[in-house]
Amino acid sequence: MSNIETRIKSLQRAMRVKRVDAFLVLNIKNIRYLTGFTGSSAFAFITRDRSFFFTDFRYKEQAENEVRYSERGLEKGKRIFLIKNLMKKLGIKVLGFESSVPFDFYDVLRQLQVTLTPLNGLVEQLRLVKDSEELQSIKEAIKRAEEAFMATKPRIRPGITESAVALRLEEELKKRGCRRIPFDIIVASGRHSSMPHAGQTDKKLEKGDFVIIDWGGEAGGYYSDMTRTLLLAGPDMGPKKKIYDIVNRAREKAISEVREGIKSSDIDAAARNFINDAGYGDYFGHGTGHGIGLDVHEGPRISWMSREPLSSGMIFSIEPGIYVPDFGGVRIEDLVLVEGDTGRTLTTLNRKLEIING
Amino acid sequence: MSNIETRIKSLQRAMRVKRVDAFLVLNIKNIRYLTGFTGSSAFAFITRDRSFFFTDFRYKEQAENEVRYSERGLEKGKRIFLIKNLMKKLGIKVLGFESSVPFDFYDVLRQLQVTLTPLNGLVEQLRLVKDSEELQSIKEAIKRAEEAFMATKPRIRPGITESAVALRLEEELKKRGCRRIPFDIIVASGRHSSMPHAGQTDKKLEKGDFVIIDWGGEAGGYYSDMTRTLLLAGPDMGPKKKIYDIVNRAREKAISEVREGIKSSDIDAAARNFINDAGYGDYFGHGTGHGIGLDVHEGPRISWMSREPLSSGMIFSIEPGIYVPDFGGVRIEDLVLVEGDTGRTLTTLNRKLEIING
Repeated sequence: MSNIETRIKSLQRAMRVKRVDAFLVLNIKNIRYLTGFTGSSAFAFITRDRSFFFTDFRYKEQAENEVRYSERGLEKGKRIFLIKNLMKKLGIKVLGFESSVPFDFYDVLRQLQVTLTPLNGLVEQLRLVKDSEELQSIKEAIKRAEEAFMATKPRIRPGITESAVALRLEEELKKRGCRRIPFDIIVASGRHSSMPHAGQTDKKLEKGDFVIIDWGGEAGGYYSDMTRTLLLAGPDMGPKKKIYDIVNRAREKAISEVREGIKSSDIDAAARNFINDAGYGDYFGHGTGHGIGLDVHEGPRISWMSREPLSSGMIFSIEPGIYVPDFGGVRIEDLVLVEGDTGRTLTTLNRKLEIING
Repeated sequence: MSNIETRIKSLQRAMRVKRVDAFLVLNIKNIRYLTGFTGSSAFAFITRDRSFFFTDFRYKEQAENEVRYSERGLEKGKRIFLIKNLMKKLGIKVLGFESSVPFDFYDVLRQLQVTLTPLNGLVEQLRLVKDSEELQSIKEAIKRAEEAFMATKPRIRPGITESAVALRLEEELKKRGCRRIPFDIIVASGRHSSMPHAGQTDKKLEKGDFVIIDWGGEAGGYYSDMTRTLLLAGPDMGPKKKIYDIVNRAREKAISEVREGIKSSDIDAAARNFINDAGYGDYFGHGTGHGIGLDVHEGPRISWMSREPLSSGMIFSIEPGIYVPDFGGVRIEDLVLVEGDTGRTLTTLNRKLEIING
């Protein structure tokens, strides 16, 4: 059975549990997951024992190449009429739909006069656990990101601007085959490094700056996400080394907890308690990590609020940080795969503090 | 009155017509339009005579700098509780919300036990007509895009890959200050040029290829969008020149129709009829244009289905094309501003067929 076929069959099992006759899939990432289609406009209509895929004429040829398992059709005119006819033909009485659809579309669905069941994250639930093909893509996305970083690193010196570093890194990612950049690269130096969601500015890197670099790669539609923090030699090296060391050990603590069955909140707690005990609890305001795959942020959330137990095959970030206003910040982020009793760290770049002289 | 204040007051007038006491704004572009906030998480709550803005701690400082006109508050905990308290305090009985919100969020709003009124495109309607500040940003976005193209053009030669051209163009856009690339740049050559929504591949440009390049710039959050088609000298130059000429004249025909009060469909018809009469009607499958601003695709649509009359201050693309399968395609796209009795073409790059020898 192909991966795609396995995914559809798992979805059909979940649909039985939810008691829907059919499930309408509009989220383009979910469609890609269920059909292999990489274009940007389509919908999938899954019944208990069949799987339909529709796109418009622009993607006809592409769909013929990519969509093998589902029955293919072409969209023309209003989507709702097509859905209506299909439902009539198949005798669908209870239609499930993604609860993430716009209210507008829900309002249109109401015309169908069938029972409508909003389903929250039905496909996303399947996407939590990665299969071998997905793991390969994520590994490749990591490799591209790491190589791009290594090619960029020699430029990271006092005097270069944050945005020049980001631009170079982006070029290197694209050169290595990343068709999309998963998110705007963060290069946050000095005072900016103390703002967890700083972007990049025309500020020049200066001696004594922490430089947080948060970036990701892509391969086969799957993303990677990682963060490294470098230190430019300068004043206050003692306290800076200390903060770096706390974050790095918090990262290790969290990763050492990763295993099948553990709750996300326990992993978060491992990092958070360590940072609390070191006296920096007020400076770690965000969650410890997030799942990654076709979306750069997906389940599982690794946070104090997330009590779901982990399963083998889940891949997520571990990214504790400490951000001291007007002083600077550190974040270190790895991607980790749950593998039975352990967590396997997929990212390989050095995490020891690198001090750049120059 | 500042532009922001004018926008809020226009929205409040529209709210009166729709008989809502308050309007909840979640779309981040609409929030930017109404408040000036450039961050990525916030909401706005507009009543008949007041305007509130909320973001979380990450954007506190940024909001203080950017959001001048609205009353600012910080989000903490669940958004719905904050909205509930605000509504209670202000005595709101009828709440308008953007009909584009996810069904999920609508489902949460239902807890409020007030009258909920979905409103389709209330802010988007205001955004159709650009004010002087917006026009300046779009002009700058065009300038950056045009300069980036001119810097890239010498590379467009047989032997270079489509993706190398796209990568270079993207670099040149970023160098000129574009913080975002509005959409994946299209570089579609030879056979690919006959697919209107081709992306870019590792295919090398070859002699005789049409090369469609569709790209945009950004400035101050506003986008530009333009397309040029070059021809690499090679076989079949006669029929290729002919197709190019038809598309270019169709573009001129459409632009010459632009004026206040005309229906979008009449502009579309001007281009479409010309292409039909030339015998290529079957090869022009998409609409003639689309509005642009904070979104790369917004109103007005310039299509056969769109009967709204145009107003001065609207800015949109005019982009007819002819795509002949297995032969090649041409698209030429300009941005046009409605100015009273005429349409002013904002893009300035040459539209005469450029034939590249080499």
